[in-house]
Amino acid sequence: MVQDRSVRALCFLDNRLQLIERAEPELRDGWVLVRPIVAGICNTDLEIVRGYMGFEGVLGHEFVGVVEQGPADSLGKRVATEINFACRDCLSCEAGLERHCSNRTVLGIVGQPGAFADLVAVPVANLHPVPAAVGDEEAVFTEPLAAAFAVLDQVELGPNSEATVLGDGKLGLLIAQVLALSGASVLAVGKHREHLDILRDRGIDTVLLEDFDRRPRSLVVDATGSAAGFGLALEVTAPRGTLILKSTVAPDETKRQPIDLAPVVINEIRVVGSRCGPFAPALAALAAGQIEVRAMIAARFALDDAVAAMDHAARPGVLKVLLRFGDSGQAKS
Amino acid sequence: MVQDRSVRALCFLDNRLQLIERAEPELRDGWVLVRPIVAGICNTDLEIVRGYMGFEGVLGHEFVGVVEQGPADSLGKRVATEINFACRDCLSCEAGLERHCSNRTVLGIVGQPGAFADLVAVPVANLHPVPAAVGDEEAVFTEPLAAAFAVLDQVELGPNSEATVLGDGKLGLLIAQVLALSGASVLAVGKHREHLDILRDRGIDTVLLEDFDRRPRSLVVDATGSAAGFGLALEVTAPRGTLILKSTVAPDETKRQPIDLAPVVINEIRVVGSRCGPFAPALAALAAGQIEVRAMIAARFALDDAVAAMDHAARPGVLKVLLRFGDSGQAKS
Repeated sequence: MVQDRSVRALCFLDNRLQLIERAEPELRDGWVLVRPIVAGICNTDLEIVRGYMGFEGVLGHEFVGVVEQGPADSLGKRVATEINFACRDCLSCEAGLERHCSNRTVLGIVGQPGAFADLVAVPVANLHPVPAAVGDEEAVFTEPLAAAFAVLDQVELGPNSEATVLGDGKLGLLIAQVLALSGASVLAVGKHREHLDILRDRGIDTVLLEDFDRRPRSLVVDATGSAAGFGLALEVTAPRGTLILKSTVAPDETKRQPIDLAPVVINEIRVVGSRCGPFAPALAALAAGQIEVRAMIAARFALDDAVAAMDHAARPGVLKVLLRFGDSGQAKS
Repeated sequence: MVQDRSVRALCFLDNRLQLIERAEPELRDGWVLVRPIVAGICNTDLEIVRGYMGFEGVLGHEFVGVVEQGPADSLGKRVATEINFACRDCLSCEAGLERHCSNRTVLGIVGQPGAFADLVAVPVANLHPVPAAVGDEEAVFTEPLAAAFAVLDQVELGPNSEATVLGDGKLGLLIAQVLALSGASVLAVGKHREHLDILRDRGIDTVLLEDFDRRPRSLVVDATGSAAGFGLALEVTAPRGTLILKSTVAPDETKRQPIDLAPVVINEIRVVGSRCGPFAPALAALAAGQIEVRAMIAARFALDDAVAAMDHAARPGVLKVLLRFGDSGQAKS
């Protein structure tokens, strides 16, 4: 019997983050093992460490890697991976809503070891080859960029539309850029001039929260991740307007600052939840150079320094922190 | 100078309900004075007494009455009244959304003395003549029935649709009946067998909350008015489904039982707030005998007993309490 090879993995276990050695993942029929090249730390990773989703195990769902084991036609391919692993058998799957499969696992979030590890197992059906024009550090943004593209599936936007994006964190910056692709007039509202400047450099209107004109707006996207942000979104969504809810609020915060849904009823607002999105337009937009993501990279860490990387990513105002798997332990930026 | 005539009015003043004598309302250009025949007590009236909307003054917005002063062509007409008094000059009004006028007053709710009084002033533009086929006690239901009809403006429903209505209070019973008019399969969920039987007698499926199958449903209407009810609505709304929010939750309750919006994002639910609706289809449905409202009348009081009527209406499980203006003080049912 061959001894299992071991891999490094950043785990959330026993209520703390730890880099451990664990057995190489098993290769199942219809799955591949991918060796990550670069991975990105998402706010969801930070929330899991605060107890969100009750997840224990290997973190990580944003990554690009190379297929190392699996069917011959996939070997060696550089891939991004859809994170919802569907059963393809339930009512949601039959309806074509695999991302909402009622039996799904979610990479690094629900019942599925994630990508902050030397090897990660994913279904072949979830792989998307990354075009050569997209560099590794850009490809890491495919998953969150797909989540931003989800908004275009949920509302009609065109050159005569206007949209207001609240929040200048990682997701807010991607959403503002995606909505601008539709030709709509986009206003991004945030607390960090240096984040907003990434958008301003691309011709998108921006305003600091303190200068924001709180007039009613027909389409508002809440990407703030805070109860106060959701409250502001409700306040500025016009009667019969649409509020796209892109971020959740930690339950603890909801207890301190109760959410009042009366404006939803009084102003007959449509609140549309939005989670994951389509990978194809995200990869196409990255290949075409339509989305500025490199300016969003705040720091790079080796996997050996993954705990420090998570600490860094949790600091207020820090944008995307990357884990580079080829690097040896020493933070660089 | 002629002495003003005085009228009786049920007021919420100095944080308490009181029946007072006050001056007859002034007749302005473009307005009429209506003498109510019957009025209905709404949950909103009860909430105002608990501090909702910060309203002080004459309560009451559901009523039928006869025009007593005003333009000659309106005199003597029996009318129901739309409750949002629009400025007809703001952006919402220009967009045809008079019910969302940003300068509106709302009868008995926002800056406008209500109809629990011997005379009430309303704009001519808000009057709807009541067809002869609609009795006084049925006509009182026009306003809440219009609110139920609002749902049909907000979602597509037909014989192949299904809808689940949570809450068997006054509004829930009206909504379930209105949705059933579309041919959709409607399931009404409630806590009161005797309320649900009003629907069952009209061929609508009903189930007690304790027996409710919590499978995912594509369209859910929350008419419970409770945080627990909204939580249940979120729980049973299917991924990408629609939750029509018809009732608000008192802020105090939200503090005790925080609202968790994570399911909205995770399941990409559309939450659609719904408040007031169109009077024309409501009056037409009443005239055609399509909606059972008489079975919802729990008690009748004279205006002199209006404080007792409010107390009665506030008891758990009590449906519509009416004020009859022609009666002298003595409760009857």
